[in-house]
Amino acid sequence: MGGDFAPRATVAGALLALCELDSNHTIQLVGQTTVIRSQLDALLTEREFAPVRAQRERLSIIEAPDVIEMTDKPSAAVRGKPNSSMIVGLKLQADGESDAFVSAGNTGAQMAASMVVLRLHAGLKRPAIATLFPTSLKPVVVLDSGANVDCSPDELVQFARLGAVYAEDILGRDNPAVGLMSIGEEPEKGNAAVKEAHQLLQSAGIRFIGNVEGRDLPNGACDRGPIDVVVCDGFVGNVVLKFYESIAPFIMRLLGEAGVDQQIMAKALRQLDYSEHGGAPLLGVKGISIISHGKSSPRAIMNALKVGVRAVETRMDEHVGRRLQEGVGAV
Amino acid sequence: MGGDFAPRATVAGALLALCELDSNHTIQLVGQTTVIRSQLDALLTEREFAPVRAQRERLSIIEAPDVIEMTDKPSAAVRGKPNSSMIVGLKLQADGESDAFVSAGNTGAQMAASMVVLRLHAGLKRPAIATLFPTSLKPVVVLDSGANVDCSPDELVQFARLGAVYAEDILGRDNPAVGLMSIGEEPEKGNAAVKEAHQLLQSAGIRFIGNVEGRDLPNGACDRGPIDVVVCDGFVGNVVLKFYESIAPFIMRLLGEAGVDQQIMAKALRQLDYSEHGGAPLLGVKGISIISHGKSSPRAIMNALKVGVRAVETRMDEHVGRRLQEGVGAV
Repeated sequence: MGGDFAPRATVAGALLALCELDSNHTIQLVGQTTVIRSQLDALLTEREFAPVRAQRERLSIIEAPDVIEMTDKPSAAVRGKPNSSMIVGLKLQADGESDAFVSAGNTGAQMAASMVVLRLHAGLKRPAIATLFPTSLKPVVVLDSGANVDCSPDELVQFARLGAVYAEDILGRDNPAVGLMSIGEEPEKGNAAVKEAHQLLQSAGIRFIGNVEGRDLPNGACDRGPIDVVVCDGFVGNVVLKFYESIAPFIMRLLGEAGVDQQIMAKALRQLDYSEHGGAPLLGVKGISIISHGKSSPRAIMNALKVGVRAVETRMDEHVGRRLQEGVGAV
Repeated sequence: MGGDFAPRATVAGALLALCELDSNHTIQLVGQTTVIRSQLDALLTEREFAPVRAQRERLSIIEAPDVIEMTDKPSAAVRGKPNSSMIVGLKLQADGESDAFVSAGNTGAQMAASMVVLRLHAGLKRPAIATLFPTSLKPVVVLDSGANVDCSPDELVQFARLGAVYAEDILGRDNPAVGLMSIGEEPEKGNAAVKEAHQLLQSAGIRFIGNVEGRDLPNGACDRGPIDVVVCDGFVGNVVLKFYESIAPFIMRLLGEAGVDQQIMAKALRQLDYSEHGGAPLLGVKGISIISHGKSSPRAIMNALKVGVRAVETRMDEHVGRRLQEGVGAV
């Protein structure tokens, strides 16, 4: 039921995913049964979904009458709407009825509900949102991108561990290079938390490549080579993420006014589109909870579901737990 | 002597400025006399500078034998190189021999030297760097963009006052709209310093339009209308500034690979070029100290000099002092 274009975009995304995933994968659609069923019936008449028209048994509808609005306060929504698709969907996973959860709904509520229902790995105060940034080279994982502000040095180190697991499991990167976002490459540059985190990261058992700067993010690399993971607090990460989302449309508008063809631009800049990269895993919860953009298209939902499948198949959650455990002695 | 392309770019920039400024304006070139003189002689033979060939009396060369390198530590450079162009040039202003100072050299050293030589207005701990960001609408002043990390709520309020004066005097904006960078428009969104600053800004005697987000910066506006000034700590401002500087080249590369004409793009995106916007005033020092990008072209130096002239003509420094004084009772 979540997201600006729900339930159409979410249901259509699930159908697209069924088309692409192996036939042993099934999807539970959680929400108001009547709304979902009529949406599903309508979509299945469309030509695009013909390949899965005879596979309705791969879909089940799970009733969840409450709807959390985008404007609801997260904690109040979690307490006051226990039968929302958010809570019901996550409980299915906690009860072993599903392996992963994807939502395009209220991000704050998804985080709060995930913490309550799935709970956190030991040693964490809050989960982190890991977002993929398109770059000149390979996409870079940036975390935290909005869940945590005022982070301690220890928390930044935990983000580094979480991001390394994401890069290994979801992106298939070997021994990923982890950079710390700062305002100069020298260890003494940055705010107090970043300077202390820099020191801690040098013995955190990950491949720490030192400080990186804002300019290194679009480049996907710094002077010391390609970057796989960038660690920052959720305030900085969120500002840069939202900045990134609106800079490409601005540049495309300027070029459009100069006569550059919109279709050529749209195609060339397709990799900048968040929907190509699927959802952002909420890292640190015991389980898989994937946050999709509120404006998710069916394609974005499909990609988020595929990220969920990949997280399950690579046993990302188990690796997260182990990696955080390694840190208990070290930090 | 400062900047990646000195002394050619700085001297050529001074000559460009002479061509454009009224003939009552004069420029002091501060640095190693022999180096500057031979550079000047060479440039004056070029056709571009023919209009000022007969106006050498508008230029004077002031000897400053020491050179601060880009890699020098700011405080050590200020103490150890008292005869650098940075110190000598700023002292000319402190002694009433000049009205404004422009440099493309070591930014940290310029800040340290400006604090020592010009000193700060009462109530400030450090000056702020105010940078212009090109947007879909008019350029937006972002401060601080790198001088201050770990800012207190009071410091963020001071940035708002400084930015408002900049917008009024340099940009000619009436009653400028000041936004506070955060991760959501609601007053309760943000880190601890931002949340407290939000409250203080509501009675700071400026037109505070509330929190703005990363996405509002390229747009030059938020839901409540156009933005003139964005306030943030220097860590966030510097990350976003450097991010901005490298995102346009990345997008142009993608489009170039798709066959879009480089010249059309360069022309259409000319407003994204920092050199069009001149230097960034160091706000809060008693006087005018303009920071130019290390990679400044002659055109960027010329624009920085014009910002300096404008700051002097509008009596920006006096307005900064008065505006900060207003805040002493309020905050």
